Amino acid sequence: MNIHPLVAIVSLLALLLYFYMSLRVGQGRSKYGVEAPAVTGHPDFERAYRIQMNTLEWLPLFLVSLWLFALSWDADLISAGIGLVWIIGRILYLTGYSKAAAARGPGFGIQALATAVLLFGALGKIIWMLIHPGA
Amino acid sequence: MNIHPLVAIVSLLALLLYFYMSLRVGQGRSKYGVEAPAVTGHPDFERAYRIQMNTLEWLPLFLVSLWLFALSWDADLISAGIGLVWIIGRILYLTGYSKAAAARGPGFGIQALATAVLLFGALGKIIWMLIHPGA
Amino acid sequence: MNIHPLVAIVSLLALLLYFYMSLRVGQGRSKYGVEAPAVTGHPDFERAYRIQMNTLEWLPLFLVSLWLFALSWDADLISAGIGLVWIIGRILYLTGYSKAAAARGPGFGIQALATAVLLFGALGKIIWMLIHPGA
Repeated sequence: MNIHPLVAIVSLLALLLYFYMSLRVGQGRSKYGVEAPAVTGHPDFERAYRIQMNTLEWLPLFLVSLWLFALSWDADLISAGIGLVWIIGRILYLTGYSKAAAARGPGFGIQALATAVLLFGALGKIIWMLIHPGA
Repeated sequence: MNIHPLVAIVSLLALLLYFYMSLRVGQGRSKYGVEAPAVTGHPDFERAYRIQMNTLEWLPLFLVSLWLFALSWDADLISAGIGLVWIIGRILYLTGYSKAAAARGPGFGIQALATAVLLFGALGKIIWMLIHPGA
Repeated sequence: MNIHPLVAIVSLLALLLYFYMSLRVGQGRSKYGVEAPAVTGHPDFERAYRIQMNTLEWLPLFLVSLWLFALSWDADLISAGIGLVWIIGRILYLTGYSKAAAARGPGFGIQALATAVLLFGALGKIIWMLIHPGA
């Protein structure tokens, strides 16, 4: 695979972080006595669950935008760099939200900004290429 | 990226609609006083949340089927057109479900039909190509 | 589409299984009297809902890892075979969890193992190719 190895690595690292978040939910079940299929019952468990769920909610936005950005700009390093910013934002989101729901803002903002750059960057470039087919 | 620009644009538009649905959930938190990490507490908030969640539940079905349909049939315009039907169905689902849970049916049916055409269209074409390698 | 038809078919079969899980949730609504937008109210419904949700939670991990494994190793048959193991694990998860929450373990473990092989297999191969560009 000669295409976009750094973007592929960043995608898998993002998924590993997400997997770690889901592990914390599983551990929280025994720690706080929240038995499946319940997903409520203890505030610490509920925050761990929402950390995973919100990240899941953003994964399609992030992953599809990341790859369409990388493919349309043909820019492996820059795309992977923006993807890394997303991962850093998600780590801050995890550490902040774990302490208190109110502390989830900064990390959330960083990953949302990175996603917006990728999404609108890809959308703009693809529309530009449709309008300028010879360029 | 010379491959399937219209399908790429439709994918990003679908994600923007989905992002708008998740924005409504965030606004609903302050509007109806549902503080994170809770996801219940007011019927209007719960419907907004289910609108986003159900769309998330269908995004892997839709996006994977859309791209495998586009790649296997090599048909950018037709694939993007069916994808647009999915988006219209999801807009009707959003406006209907926002009023009442019972009004979510028509929009849901339209997006389900569009997804089925993409999924079975891709599956049939790929199996056909495996059986007829010389065609 | 000459690239990885078997992986494409396995992807669509995994999505069909997931779609069947979401159908069971819809049927459970009328069977157990759990009206939208509620997602709680009867243990059998809640288990059916968690079966779908947990599979959704794993779909990005599985699908992205599956395709990056197939692309980086250029191995359609082996990738599709590991993907089939994931599907079998998810069927056992569905049948086990439907009976009792405690019976969801074996199927969960099988699909987690298949995902781990795909994810770390892809990650290792891509890093190896980056370090050995001439190989």
